[in-house]
Amino acid sequence: MAVSQKIRGSLESASWIRRMFEEGEERKAKFGVENVFDFSLGNPILEPPIKFKQTLKELANDPREGLHAYMSNAGFVETRQAVADYLNKFNRPAFSADDIIMTVGAGGGLNVVFKTILDPGDEVIIPCPYFVEYNFYLDNHQGRPCIVPTKTDFSLDISSIEAAFTDKTKAVLINSPNNPTGRVYNEEELRLLAEALIHYSSKLGRPIYLVSDEPYRKITYDGILVPGIFDIYNESFVVTSFSKDLSLPGERIGYAAASPDMSDKKMIMAGMVLSNRILGYVNAPALMQRAVALLLEERIDISLYQKKRDILCSALASFGYEFERPGGAFYLFPRTPVENDVEFVMALKEENILTVPGSGFGGPGHFRIAYCVSDYVVEGALPGFERAIKKYS
Amino acid sequence: MAVSQKIRGSLESASWIRRMFEEGEERKAKFGVENVFDFSLGNPILEPPIKFKQTLKELANDPREGLHAYMSNAGFVETRQAVADYLNKFNRPAFSADDIIMTVGAGGGLNVVFKTILDPGDEVIIPCPYFVEYNFYLDNHQGRPCIVPTKTDFSLDISSIEAAFTDKTKAVLINSPNNPTGRVYNEEELRLLAEALIHYSSKLGRPIYLVSDEPYRKITYDGILVPGIFDIYNESFVVTSFSKDLSLPGERIGYAAASPDMSDKKMIMAGMVLSNRILGYVNAPALMQRAVALLLEERIDISLYQKKRDILCSALASFGYEFERPGGAFYLFPRTPVENDVEFVMALKEENILTVPGSGFGGPGHFRIAYCVSDYVVEGALPGFERAIKKYS
Repeated sequence: MAVSQKIRGSLESASWIRRMFEEGEERKAKFGVENVFDFSLGNPILEPPIKFKQTLKELANDPREGLHAYMSNAGFVETRQAVADYLNKFNRPAFSADDIIMTVGAGGGLNVVFKTILDPGDEVIIPCPYFVEYNFYLDNHQGRPCIVPTKTDFSLDISSIEAAFTDKTKAVLINSPNNPTGRVYNEEELRLLAEALIHYSSKLGRPIYLVSDEPYRKITYDGILVPGIFDIYNESFVVTSFSKDLSLPGERIGYAAASPDMSDKKMIMAGMVLSNRILGYVNAPALMQRAVALLLEERIDISLYQKKRDILCSALASFGYEFERPGGAFYLFPRTPVENDVEFVMALKEENILTVPGSGFGGPGHFRIAYCVSDYVVEGALPGFERAIKKYS
Repeated sequence: MAVSQKIRGSLESASWIRRMFEEGEERKAKFGVENVFDFSLGNPILEPPIKFKQTLKELANDPREGLHAYMSNAGFVETRQAVADYLNKFNRPAFSADDIIMTVGAGGGLNVVFKTILDPGDEVIIPCPYFVEYNFYLDNHQGRPCIVPTKTDFSLDISSIEAAFTDKTKAVLINSPNNPTGRVYNEEELRLLAEALIHYSSKLGRPIYLVSDEPYRKITYDGILVPGIFDIYNESFVVTSFSKDLSLPGERIGYAAASPDMSDKKMIMAGMVLSNRILGYVNAPALMQRAVALLLEERIDISLYQKKRDILCSALASFGYEFERPGGAFYLFPRTPVENDVEFVMALKEENILTVPGSGFGGPGHFRIAYCVSDYVVEGALPGFERAIKKYS
């Protein structure tokens, strides 16, 4: 075999997604890019904030030496201290630079955490629907996903999580605001989750970790705030990136933070720094580390995403679509009017609307609309959304 | 256990290296940084070329949109095409953008290649002494290193490589110019290696790959050129970075290239693009991809490294040290005057000279001097080098 069996299997199972993508590209070529409404990717349309662009110019003119050299595998101490100071504003102010490691985006951060904590065969519980890339991140370290349902409104179903605990459970992985549902878990849900974790950790005699993937934390609507997990549960990691809130996904910059009160924290952090190195990341990109240290309070103008959400929600509701109104992120996850979500996504494609079947997120009977797109895409797609659902009514 | 068994084991085995590092830091605090001569790290002292700094300013002022967004997981097509055009100057001009994937440094590139080709238990033959980080990169994908000796002048020992072939052999991994020896493999060595690979591949009925890690390709002395492997062996990958030749190690930018004539190349490249994504790298940092596309012909002023090499080589030889004169990179790997290389490295430390025992590279009885340091470090260390060897004569 030229490629490994695993990679061959992944390439084969990804082939229909690729086919859909290619068909979308064909439609763009045939009908013109402006007549195909592509909601399939979570690639933010908004430009980074003006202050990012100013900061980049200033950093490019910084005459100091050594700015592009290796630093500690954990990242520049100045950046890690700035992140700690930032976290101290929203949590019990106990964070220091030693609790932070700068990473190659949230994808890098999740892999660093999993490499550090997982032995082969260890299980990680993931509420569903979920970002299926997590399956790969666990498999990279021979961990196993244990997928559990959420309630019909996509809130956490604590009893389904409790039912999934085994003596192999190493962590619960949550993502709030959620991709693909836009759901933000509230403080009560998280407190119940923490209680379950404390109970089962004490039964096992070792911590079950809570890993919270939070790249959409700053993207919420209607005044909703994302509760912090650090003050709720001590054995917590937060992994995040600046991909969405600063619109910098191509630059691969993020961080992982461990609770200041985590057990065995010194060894955990040493393990994370080692993992960042030996996974081949080595360190987060130097220039971007310097940039984000100065931009922790910034975010893109979320009113622009909110407007797209509002237009979509009111139009789709009026056409008869059923969905939970998302509190954050830039995804909408409506039910499909037929059971077969792939069939409905194909019907939307006939209308030149590109979306992703819920099955791709472990949420069959739904489809995902990524509305981080231009206004003309949102507005142009509305008649097609209406025609598509009419076929099934 | 808080951390995985593997990470715990690695932390423990790394503890004496860390102790040495910490003792070095203590010496710097005690005697003053300027009185401790640190040759322990391959962190280039030279600043990036002026043209890099100009390019960075221009890119920071680029008014176009979407410059920091996600692109294909393979990287910007413009950058990959520029790399292909560059490779076409030094190889049979058959490269296209499709043969290139931009990576998070060479560390990222090697992990992408190994994830793509290795099944659990597959073996990779590595001539020794070698960069031991390779052990981690193979273990990340459940591959196994198979370490074979080189000749006493550190040239390839083809018969030892041939003796190591098994039906589990998936690749041979070389690094030229070499870390830690500075050895550049010549064309004859590489042709003999290719013959052995062709012979054994045909016996197995599948390709054994040649993976060449080449971050020091542009750093050679005395007119030595590093022969290209693509025109010598079809089943070849080159992995490299801009960390050393542009002095950008902190920015994590490099690429992996596959031979245009590789068997099953389409699936191999699709596997590499997938691996780049699912390992959590996602893509190489966007801004640096744009920068290096404009700087492929650039390199730092290697005459500055050559001067340090020449001063060290002539002084150490006059003191009685035995070594192979390095043809490239910025490492010198002398024999220790006692069998126990750790003992001699400790003796050097007493002289406030920090180096690394050859055992750390699978080359006991030697020590590594990384001379990518300031001139005052080279010159200041010479009396200590002389005193240390005198103790053993």
